[in-house]
Amino acid sequence: MSTYLIGLDYGTESARGVLIDAASGEQVASHAHPYRHGVMTSLPDGTRLPPLWALQDADDYIEAAGEILSRLGRGRAVEAIGLGFTASSPMPATGAGVPLSRIHPGDPHAYVKLWKHGAAQPYADAINAGGGAFLDNFGGKLSGEWLLAKAAQIADEAPEIWRETERFIEAGDWLVWQLCGREARSLGFAAYKAQYSEALGYPEGIVPGLAGRLSSPLGIGSAAGGLSAAWRERTGISGAAVVAVAVIDSHVVLPAIGAVSTGALVGALGTSAVYLFLNRDFRPLPPGIEGVARDGSIRDLWCYEAGQAGFGDTLAWFVKAFPRAPTQAGSFALYNGEAAAMAPGANHLLALDWWNGNRVPLADSGLSGLLLGLKTDTTAVGIYRALMESLCFGARTVLDLFEAADFSIERVILTSGLAQNNPLLVQIMADVFERSVEVPEIANPTAVGAAIHGAVAAGLVPDYAEGAARFGARRFTPYRPNPGHAPAYRTLYRNYRALCADDTVRRALHDLNIVIPG
Amino acid sequence: MSTYLIGLDYGTESARGVLIDAASGEQVASHAHPYRHGVMTSLPDGTRLPPLWALQDADDYIEAAGEILSRLGRGRAVEAIGLGFTASSPMPATGAGVPLSRIHPGDPHAYVKLWKHGAAQPYADAINAGGGAFLDNFGGKLSGEWLLAKAAQIADEAPEIWRETERFIEAGDWLVWQLCGREARSLGFAAYKAQYSEALGYPEGIVPGLAGRLSSPLGIGSAAGGLSAAWRERTGISGAAVVAVAVIDSHVVLPAIGAVSTGALVGALGTSAVYLFLNRDFRPLPPGIEGVARDGSIRDLWCYEAGQAGFGDTLAWFVKAFPRAPTQAGSFALYNGEAAAMAPGANHLLALDWWNGNRVPLADSGLSGLLLGLKTDTTAVGIYRALMESLCFGARTVLDLFEAADFSIERVILTSGLAQNNPLLVQIMADVFERSVEVPEIANPTAVGAAIHGAVAAGLVPDYAEGAARFGARRFTPYRPNPGHAPAYRTLYRNYRALCADDTVRRALHDLNIVIPG
Repeated sequence: MSTYLIGLDYGTESARGVLIDAASGEQVASHAHPYRHGVMTSLPDGTRLPPLWALQDADDYIEAAGEILSRLGRGRAVEAIGLGFTASSPMPATGAGVPLSRIHPGDPHAYVKLWKHGAAQPYADAINAGGGAFLDNFGGKLSGEWLLAKAAQIADEAPEIWRETERFIEAGDWLVWQLCGREARSLGFAAYKAQYSEALGYPEGIVPGLAGRLSSPLGIGSAAGGLSAAWRERTGISGAAVVAVAVIDSHVVLPAIGAVSTGALVGALGTSAVYLFLNRDFRPLPPGIEGVARDGSIRDLWCYEAGQAGFGDTLAWFVKAFPRAPTQAGSFALYNGEAAAMAPGANHLLALDWWNGNRVPLADSGLSGLLLGLKTDTTAVGIYRALMESLCFGARTVLDLFEAADFSIERVILTSGLAQNNPLLVQIMADVFERSVEVPEIANPTAVGAAIHGAVAAGLVPDYAEGAARFGARRFTPYRPNPGHAPAYRTLYRNYRALCADDTVRRALHDLNIVIPG
Repeated sequence: MSTYLIGLDYGTESARGVLIDAASGEQVASHAHPYRHGVMTSLPDGTRLPPLWALQDADDYIEAAGEILSRLGRGRAVEAIGLGFTASSPMPATGAGVPLSRIHPGDPHAYVKLWKHGAAQPYADAINAGGGAFLDNFGGKLSGEWLLAKAAQIADEAPEIWRETERFIEAGDWLVWQLCGREARSLGFAAYKAQYSEALGYPEGIVPGLAGRLSSPLGIGSAAGGLSAAWRERTGISGAAVVAVAVIDSHVVLPAIGAVSTGALVGALGTSAVYLFLNRDFRPLPPGIEGVARDGSIRDLWCYEAGQAGFGDTLAWFVKAFPRAPTQAGSFALYNGEAAAMAPGANHLLALDWWNGNRVPLADSGLSGLLLGLKTDTTAVGIYRALMESLCFGARTVLDLFEAADFSIERVILTSGLAQNNPLLVQIMADVFERSVEVPEIANPTAVGAAIHGAVAAGLVPDYAEGAARFGARRFTPYRPNPGHAPAYRTLYRNYRALCADDTVRRALHDLNIVIPG
């Protein structure tokens, strides 16, 4: 009788699951389910949320899990279940794991604060002003998207909710708790989103009473427990069904794309871009890189994090602002086709890819994009190509920061739909990097990565390397740099970096935010 | 019996004439005639000209004069004829005024080198490297578009043509010669385009044998002579028909729009923009302003010249690159309508208007345009409005250079089709200047200005002030600045100037020119 793995990928708008045959490693089926309430901008009673707020309803996760696990697992022997989840998306719950939103549906602070909830930024600023050793591995700076800031916001703005909060918990950890009946927090969430370290524990004295509402995390690849009887009943799943601790969604993909060893740099090129770099040994965070923790991504490795605030959305903006076909896909096809026919440098344009601000190296969300070199013979497709190139210069900046800090980058792996569907973009990456990059050919990589975490947690494979080999991508498309393209891109990239460092430019961009429309 | 004036406006693609009733000052008729060979990019035998070359056939001017003067003047008593002409558009001729192109139609150097012929720039660079007092009133720098550079190019590249050249003459002066049978060069051309001054004469030792091929100029408003018998025969014109010396086309408009006295700043907002500032007293050229001469534009006044290399063409570029309607006019209407509905600063964008390089204050044709502040919510119309604003910031820069040199600007007059048809643009000018500007309401102002020069030359009016009053614009539409718009524009303009002065930006733009496509 066949046995299976299930991997779950909880994203911003929906969850997706894959079913993998444990013997062959093949994906047998997949299923996606959108969240009933999506990203909430109002409460169930119709109350509009203030600007920057972004909530979710924890019960939507349960509904999605019920639907997906039933579709994929009913009547099957499932060895293990793994789970990737957006982060930091924390929620208040009772000691028994009841979401406070079930008890107080009319209070916005009772809901999951989704990763992109931006209203806690002032609390992050205040915490940052205080400083502390717990920020050392995060460039001295907490993001307003992280757990500590969101906890501080509730404690300050809704003290009655905070009093009732017995557990303040990442939604991914909460879902694992619901599935197996045991609270088992993930070191991934704790380390990257709540600044937990094995040496120091959670940072203390930041939010009153927070410590008692957290709990010690388990390393990733740990078993949280077996799927509960109630969930076996609900979904028709049989077998060991070991549930692994949850993993940050941007990290969970690593074993699915072969990034399981020191020296691997992974770029996940989505709406924004996330870069993860794995290293056996610890080195202090290079200036401009955003964070690092150990055992939170791949066991026994340090995983450094960096990102670009805008990526695919920048190209999508262009195509939306300057459409050339009735559909976005049609416009993209036209622009990509014509851009591919241009030689590097032939557009005589340079862009700074700051359409959503800058994360690396400036960590400044108040910046915005630049376009230089415009002439009366500049074409729309020339601009489109300059935007693509600027995204690659932003990525090269990440690479250079690591290399400047003497890290040895052995492989560059680029993943996402964009990486699989836009060969021109990936080729420009290789050309700008002046090194080969690889694109794994695999469907649903994030969910597959989650399944591999399940396999590790269940002891089905001894480690991530074996998990990657058995269940991960088997083919990687290599893109080799074209040496003829190097001189043009070197000149452009040198100026890209010079402009990044230019105070006058940054001052002008900051002033654009404060101009009061007349 | 009625008497008339005729004004001729010789532009880049065609000539236009107006017929004015000398008693009432009303325009009675107008007529335009395109040049048979337009701007030549190949010779009559089909030989393609090299890049940057732009020639014209002098006989096209004769054809146009015959056509226009006949249409407007046949059977009429014409008191005076005035003439504005593109400059510097010099040509080689025999001592009898025969264009060498009639003798050597197969030699490109035998033709008129149109103002925008750019292939003489290396000769200008070489002359500039040598320096000289004759450059003092021109910012130390000759343009490759001017007469000296074009003479040097012929002397160097076509010595046999140069040997046959007995007269090297602006096409406008040559046409006046043909009309009245007397070589009468204009001080306007000589001063601004051949660096002639009353004190020093033409600069010496720059181009071998040039001095003997020129002749002393007459101040503008001088009579060159009466229309010749042959031309009276050809056109049916009777009366005194005094022909005035020619005037640079961008200067000839001044008396038609009331710019006849000290303190008037005129902006002619065309494809590019030209700014002329009249002042009774001489002051050394403010840094960044391009040139100054006396008696070459309006008698007894110094006329300072400055310009923007791109103006209307920058907006036309945007509308062409990102069309929104089947016709350019339709796209302009949509963009202008939506841009007018935006508040200043609401686009949160800033542009540098260098699409064709920069003239003031950097005199650097190797620069190109910048757009700052791009975000994923930036709209096409927001960019369009930023371009308009940047053109106004460029104009404000000219204004500020004069004021920084203690000139007193009494009036700002904006003229051209763009000024008359785009009230939003003119309002932004007033807002950015923080002072009132006036738009004269007059048809064919350049040709009318030429007619007024004729009237002065013929003694029909004692001076330009009287000529302007009798034949020039009678209504001026005032645009007053909106004080509520000042704060946003001040912030934007401060950053515009800071970016203009930013070495890193300029270096990046220069590098874009030398990037070798890979």
